[in-house]
Amino acid sequence: MFKSWFIIALLLPGALAAQERKRAREFGIRIGVMQPGALNAITDVRGVKVGHTTLIKGDSIRTGVTAIVPAEGNLFQQKIPAAIFVGNGFGKLAGITQVNELGNIETPIVLTNTLSVPIAMQAVAGLAMAEKGNENLRSVNAVVGETNDGYLNDIRGRHVSVTDVEAAVKTAASGKVKEGNVGAGTGTICFGFKGGIGTASRKLPASLGGYTVGVIVQSNFGGVLEIDGAPVGKVLGKFDFSDRLLNNVDGSCMIVVATDAPIDHRNLMRLAQRAMLGLGKTGGIASNGSGDYVIAFSTAEGLRIPHSGNSATQTVTLLQNDSMSPLFMAAIEATEEAIINSLFMAGGMKGRNGNSVEALPLTQVLPILQKFNRLQP
Amino acid sequence: MFKSWFIIALLLPGALAAQERKRAREFGIRIGVMQPGALNAITDVRGVKVGHTTLIKGDSIRTGVTAIVPAEGNLFQQKIPAAIFVGNGFGKLAGITQVNELGNIETPIVLTNTLSVPIAMQAVAGLAMAEKGNENLRSVNAVVGETNDGYLNDIRGRHVSVTDVEAAVKTAASGKVKEGNVGAGTGTICFGFKGGIGTASRKLPASLGGYTVGVIVQSNFGGVLEIDGAPVGKVLGKFDFSDRLLNNVDGSCMIVVATDAPIDHRNLMRLAQRAMLGLGKTGGIASNGSGDYVIAFSTAEGLRIPHSGNSATQTVTLLQNDSMSPLFMAAIEATEEAIINSLFMAGGMKGRNGNSVEALPLTQVLPILQKFNRLQP
Amino acid sequence: MFKSWFIIALLLPGALAAQERKRAREFGIRIGVMQPGALNAITDVRGVKVGHTTLIKGDSIRTGVTAIVPAEGNLFQQKIPAAIFVGNGFGKLAGITQVNELGNIETPIVLTNTLSVPIAMQAVAGLAMAEKGNENLRSVNAVVGETNDGYLNDIRGRHVSVTDVEAAVKTAASGKVKEGNVGAGTGTICFGFKGGIGTASRKLPASLGGYTVGVIVQSNFGGVLEIDGAPVGKVLGKFDFSDRLLNNVDGSCMIVVATDAPIDHRNLMRLAQRAMLGLGKTGGIASNGSGDYVIAFSTAEGLRIPHSGNSATQTVTLLQNDSMSPLFMAAIEATEEAIINSLFMAGGMKGRNGNSVEALPLTQVLPILQKFNRLQP
Amino acid sequence: MFKSWFIIALLLPGALAAQERKRAREFGIRIGVMQPGALNAITDVRGVKVGHTTLIKGDSIRTGVTAIVPAEGNLFQQKIPAAIFVGNGFGKLAGITQVNELGNIETPIVLTNTLSVPIAMQAVAGLAMAEKGNENLRSVNAVVGETNDGYLNDIRGRHVSVTDVEAAVKTAASGKVKEGNVGAGTGTICFGFKGGIGTASRKLPASLGGYTVGVIVQSNFGGVLEIDGAPVGKVLGKFDFSDRLLNNVDGSCMIVVATDAPIDHRNLMRLAQRAMLGLGKTGGIASNGSGDYVIAFSTAEGLRIPHSGNSATQTVTLLQNDSMSPLFMAAIEATEEAIINSLFMAGGMKGRNGNSVEALPLTQVLPILQKFNRLQP
Repeated sequence: MFKSWFIIALLLPGALAAQERKRAREFGIRIGVMQPGALNAITDVRGVKVGHTTLIKGDSIRTGVTAIVPAEGNLFQQKIPAAIFVGNGFGKLAGITQVNELGNIETPIVLTNTLSVPIAMQAVAGLAMAEKGNENLRSVNAVVGETNDGYLNDIRGRHVSVTDVEAAVKTAASGKVKEGNVGAGTGTICFGFKGGIGTASRKLPASLGGYTVGVIVQSNFGGVLEIDGAPVGKVLGKFDFSDRLLNNVDGSCMIVVATDAPIDHRNLMRLAQRAMLGLGKTGGIASNGSGDYVIAFSTAEGLRIPHSGNSATQTVTLLQNDSMSPLFMAAIEATEEAIINSLFMAGGMKGRNGNSVEALPLTQVLPILQKFNRLQP
Repeated sequence: MFKSWFIIALLLPGALAAQERKRAREFGIRIGVMQPGALNAITDVRGVKVGHTTLIKGDSIRTGVTAIVPAEGNLFQQKIPAAIFVGNGFGKLAGITQVNELGNIETPIVLTNTLSVPIAMQAVAGLAMAEKGNENLRSVNAVVGETNDGYLNDIRGRHVSVTDVEAAVKTAASGKVKEGNVGAGTGTICFGFKGGIGTASRKLPASLGGYTVGVIVQSNFGGVLEIDGAPVGKVLGKFDFSDRLLNNVDGSCMIVVATDAPIDHRNLMRLAQRAMLGLGKTGGIASNGSGDYVIAFSTAEGLRIPHSGNSATQTVTLLQNDSMSPLFMAAIEATEEAIINSLFMAGGMKGRNGNSVEALPLTQVLPILQKFNRLQP
Repeated sequence: MFKSWFIIALLLPGALAAQERKRAREFGIRIGVMQPGALNAITDVRGVKVGHTTLIKGDSIRTGVTAIVPAEGNLFQQKIPAAIFVGNGFGKLAGITQVNELGNIETPIVLTNTLSVPIAMQAVAGLAMAEKGNENLRSVNAVVGETNDGYLNDIRGRHVSVTDVEAAVKTAASGKVKEGNVGAGTGTICFGFKGGIGTASRKLPASLGGYTVGVIVQSNFGGVLEIDGAPVGKVLGKFDFSDRLLNNVDGSCMIVVATDAPIDHRNLMRLAQRAMLGLGKTGGIASNGSGDYVIAFSTAEGLRIPHSGNSATQTVTLLQNDSMSPLFMAAIEATEEAIINSLFMAGGMKGRNGNSVEALPLTQVLPILQKFNRLQP
Repeated sequence: MFKSWFIIALLLPGALAAQERKRAREFGIRIGVMQPGALNAITDVRGVKVGHTTLIKGDSIRTGVTAIVPAEGNLFQQKIPAAIFVGNGFGKLAGITQVNELGNIETPIVLTNTLSVPIAMQAVAGLAMAEKGNENLRSVNAVVGETNDGYLNDIRGRHVSVTDVEAAVKTAASGKVKEGNVGAGTGTICFGFKGGIGTASRKLPASLGGYTVGVIVQSNFGGVLEIDGAPVGKVLGKFDFSDRLLNNVDGSCMIVVATDAPIDHRNLMRLAQRAMLGLGKTGGIASNGSGDYVIAFSTAEGLRIPHSGNSATQTVTLLQNDSMSPLFMAAIEATEEAIINSLFMAGGMKGRNGNSVEALPLTQVLPILQKFNRLQP
């Protein structure tokens, strides 16, 4: 172990104790009652791709970009039904009003750090303009979310470049998703431990439609950590607002929810709103300083919205309101597990000004989970 | 025990196995990390009063009214800062747009069954018109919430009368709050068990302002029950949306949040939004058919808003945004515990069409909580 | 003329100078650039019916009920896409959250006076429960709007009965719509003159889809009256907020927008929002005390939403966003003209406490319109 | 005249017929019933400054930046109460969710073209980071609005630079405001004519508080032009949606409303919503493709919000709801006049691809206004 740790430490100078980490489920944690998809990742929703650019340089650059590409093809010409819900609006997310007015998204979703939102928008618009078929595009709504990694990262340096954003979009791929200290999660902190990127999914039984709901998060918020209901933060004494104020709870969480269920803006908004309940179940409180947003979209066949078409109307097949509840539960469970995965997969990190954040200390946490009977054999 | 049960059964023909029930905390359950107020009830917020009218008649009337009187004095002449958040709007709550436009509430808050909202509004308006000082009142915004008790109650019979509503308002009192099968909770169902009225509170440490947040709920919704993180619904197999669809998750939850912290509409709305995270922590999913609303108000000195005054301006002292986070956590914890209390305090109930709903089965539940290490000595 | 006036005066003791009045268009006023439908009324949208119950009794009852029945058949079993926009929420409109959460309306829309909203809800729910096929209905979302007619009407007496509401719904008919001092407009005041019920419509050219947009209003608000752009209120000196404060601008406006264009909740909300621009063009300012709401619905074939169906999905053909603009303009023009019609059609009225409100004084107004070149030959 | 025209034409190659233009009021147009402030400009609100960077280069660069600096001093450390209302969300405005969550604005407001929003955000954040006292700033919410000038401007070239934005902020000044083809209005089109920057104000009489409301707009939208109620667009046959579809109505309008009245977020939101009625009165319809936003803020003494302070509370003196109506009317009138001023002050412009847009043709328009009796002597 020492050797590989040594090598990784050399390669990633900010990574403390970068031993191999595993997802929550690999330890026997079973969040909720529904089944995950094959990868337990947002990419279980067919067509969704994820890409990361991770920036770990010198003593103080600990940041990056994560891109979620919702579907194949030209997104501007064939838009995707979408909605954005504001859990707590202390954040700089770009693109919300057009998504909610028109009910669709027309670019990849990009996550990065707070002060790199403009560069990310610039890059997203540039990619859209450069895409074949968009030669006449003169307006495009970049959807960019962010959390603040300024404790570990020299955020004022605004080190993310247009090229970094483009790389995340262009390398986005289906399949397994890297979690932890990657992309937009490179420098984030969650419940006082190292946060990062996490993902999970749920697949409805065929009797309920067989749809998949996938979630990816950039976790960077506080509260009192609970893992599958076990009061980890309380036992570790790592919490706020009892008699003591141990650490700053502020921060943010970006949550992206994908589904192949055929639902439009209105029901996507309802789905997005539910994801906040998953955040609550991890012990998050959507504190004053937290920018908590949920972006939901549907990749269902036949719902793509043409930028300009021959027809004044479009015929779509949509799920009825009555069929939404299983999707709501799936979004809650997948969000909870995605956040927990972000903590399980993120190693410790040292960064700006010598600040360091420890990884979720599994040697302490697993016994707590055992004590509270949360580990399945 | 048999004897008293026998007597209660005679008095309350709908009450099954109405043995004495106790609040969650009395069994050693300690939800969250913050301290409850003296009564662990919404009435810990000074000035708040609660009254119930419970209607259990014959085979099929199982309903009632719960009134929350936010403060002393003439509420119409001296309004109260307030906000209403919509968790899921499948409900008939009255009064929301005026509360959110003007930022205040001018009547008691009344909870009842779905089809009795109009009668309750009629009663609230009547009380306001009859109140001394309101002789010229020609418009009043009754705030009435509801959930649907139609499984146990002959809801179509609309058995709540103006007098019943008036009685709840007029008998509202400070001090201990009756929970379980009382008032608007008489006929409700929660997680497949008997729900009802529940309450709880949190008091911030003096260093964080020493404010109190009190919550009262009318619980009538579904999901997969969790008690302080323990997967009770999952262990009991009483849940939905895995491979099986066991019971209907629909229903609703009315949540009322009171605080003496000096906050106005905008921050009360944020506080109200947080209460939904508490609902999520009990396993609620805000299902499609659930009408989930949170009404929040502040009783702080000096924030009363005169109906018509001599001055065009009002000087108020308000908490800054930065100080909201502890209140957010308090609202989440108190909501979670109020819902759990509603289940602990509600006995089984038999009603309409011979339908019956069992109480939360403590003989099964307490061992589960033990197994998951949730009972403090 | 004298004779018929005399008879009407006897029959309607509150009606002052109830000479025959005519609609704006009959005087040569041509609001906007689009064409009205055949009747220039909300009933130009096929299937829409309107009914009034007018209550003029003794010295002080000047109120009523107007019902808009959106479509044929059982509305609860076959709901209608709908949205409600809040122009200014100082009002008691019932039903908004469910309409906006689920995207549909399931009852007739009823308008009445402020303090009769509960009775109207009671009546609407009763009608739904009594309707064949609704035997198992245990929850129904009554949509009831209101304005305050308390200057002319003994509003505190709450004189509207369940029967009055039922009568408005049951007598609702297609064809010509009565305007002025009828139904919910019996006792209202607008720009300091007698307001009331007004209606208008616009029909898109075939090249833009040929859809119809119909509007009905209950006008009861203030500002500085403009008629087709002519500054009537300014010339008459009947206005507020210059150097003088002549009359109270408060009041409200209920606006109902119907269309046969195939649009769902999201675009109906956008359409509803546009109707406020029509109100603005009459000189309305959505004053602090005004409860201004717009309810929009679509009667398009194939958009009816089954209460419970065999299918988890529904296939619908919807207008694209890009095709909405002509409908927006139609809603603006029809709202403006409907408000003006309410003023042209309402005679003077004497009521409570000897209060009286004069009709829009055509002998003064028509010359003003002439002077500002607003009368077409 | 010829000579000066010749010189201007040389200096500004894109300016067609850049003869001297005058504001609407100078021609005797008197919109509304309230009095303007001394300058009839947003800068009548004490402390408000406006700056422009105008980019007219070569054949195809016709764009720019307009900055509105709400108040003196460090805006990040001493924030300003604010609200943003969405009239129609087809736009890329940045910063809305934080303004509406926290109720304040912490940077200058910058307007530019659609594709330059990211660069403008980058510049605004840079200025905030560089400002003395903000050395620890690691998060800042840039408020940037836009409309699309892509018909006249090579918008895809993204010619606005960080320096251009900084220049607009740094040169912002009180006093007279340049209108027409300046700053963010350089390349815009309104009602088919050349639009641009316009401003106006209203001052309440002392009896109503004596407050000032100032408005500045970037006009770039369509509809059927009305000038003080006169149907100019109709008479000129320059309109849409009758039998013919003459020109594209899409476009956008950014509206900024400043007041010294002491009002916080909630009432600022209501004020912002009213500005849309002013847009409606010019014949605007908030078409599908229009991004119409209103940003409102208050400069009142004592309402500045410290970024971080010693006190958990703040004492503020706020206007009561009841006193808002005159401000509502002022916002409507000033918005209407600001839009009209933008048309009166903008000369014709030739730009990208040889596209040209004529100025509002005063030789035709003034006679129309005369005919409709809208010119005061």
